[in-house]
Amino acid sequence: MSIKAIIFDAYGTLFDVHTVIEKCEQFFPEKGRQISEIWRQKQLEYTWLRSLMERYEDFWTVTYEALTFALKELELESNEEIRTTLLNEYLRLNPYPEVPKALEELKDRDLAILSNGSPDMLNSMVENANLTDVFKDVISVDELKIYKPFMGVYQLGVAKLGVNKEETLFITSNPWDASGAKTFGFQVCWINRFNKHFDELGVQPDMVIRNLEELVDKI
Amino acid sequence: MSIKAIIFDAYGTLFDVHTVIEKCEQFFPEKGRQISEIWRQKQLEYTWLRSLMERYEDFWTVTYEALTFALKELELESNEEIRTTLLNEYLRLNPYPEVPKALEELKDRDLAILSNGSPDMLNSMVENANLTDVFKDVISVDELKIYKPFMGVYQLGVAKLGVNKEETLFITSNPWDASGAKTFGFQVCWINRFNKHFDELGVQPDMVIRNLEELVDKI
Repeated sequence: MSIKAIIFDAYGTLFDVHTVIEKCEQFFPEKGRQISEIWRQKQLEYTWLRSLMERYEDFWTVTYEALTFALKELELESNEEIRTTLLNEYLRLNPYPEVPKALEELKDRDLAILSNGSPDMLNSMVENANLTDVFKDVISVDELKIYKPFMGVYQLGVAKLGVNKEETLFITSNPWDASGAKTFGFQVCWINRFNKHFDELGVQPDMVIRNLEELVDKI
Repeated sequence: MSIKAIIFDAYGTLFDVHTVIEKCEQFFPEKGRQISEIWRQKQLEYTWLRSLMERYEDFWTVTYEALTFALKELELESNEEIRTTLLNEYLRLNPYPEVPKALEELKDRDLAILSNGSPDMLNSMVENANLTDVFKDVISVDELKIYKPFMGVYQLGVAKLGVNKEETLFITSNPWDASGAKTFGFQVCWINRFNKHFDELGVQPDMVIRNLEELVDKI
């Protein structure tokens, strides 16, 4: 297959959302993993629900609200200062270990990020990981005020990069995002980092890898 | 407040989705609760995701696909016959114990169901519970080919019943559904059967009860 551009999802794909566990542990010992899992689950649910209800708030707000829910669910007392401290971790999530080198090796193609994150969140995270120069564009759904997997979001990626969707490889570790991207018409690669099952949404990715290093070998 | 009509959500609100545990246990001993929880979670996710992707399939299909995922996730071997047997449980979910009597006491108002369920699923379930005569209408999202909490679904309820949304009480045990109904403009009652926290979606229900019996006393 001919690939002229590669568009990456950010959260869970290039960057590890569970980076937040360490800081969560400081405030809530032995609860970090649980907080992080509920936090992530609710963050995603809220993006889908707000999109369907047409009540968009940006990813910073949604992520704060999801954290608020997670702490309540676990009956953990917190205040705004603690929650904001934890939320700030989203500005410096770690890239997965193989990511910087793999991106460097892929960059003869146009590389971009297309993410639910708000522009400030994405820019901080990319800068903090020293990856600014690798990407031709860092594209946020914020412009459209609706989240993935709404088709218009994937269309925004194509429009911004000025590429053709059939010649674009979309890479994500989120099965629901891969399903959306495939429905849109991208070539789709699912990064299955943790040996999970793909979602039953009626479509399949074109390619499955365990990490980005494998992709470098494949294309 | 003046209430002329009451619209109920079905799954989790009037009917216990975890009725399926018993049959799950027959095929997969000691796994019933886990299967049922993942099944329900994925069922909801798939309704939201398919709605956002504009790839509607009816609730029967989505429920089957969610079950398929749940069994894979738990590494449980199954075949189509087993999955169909389990799926058929959705045609005879038990109403929560207080529901039949409470509905009887509320029926001087117009009562209706507004649900994600397909018409066949809803009709079988309502008939099986001997509740057919209680409802003026049993309304399915299937007509619109999109799921809750899309606003058009709540509008369908109003249109079908010929009522005014401000004089309609919408009752659900699902916080995301209560948030959608409130956004639409219904009076909203959240049945918090299991002492959970409400979702952080920027709206609150007008009333919170633990079961339908409490509602009879309140209105």
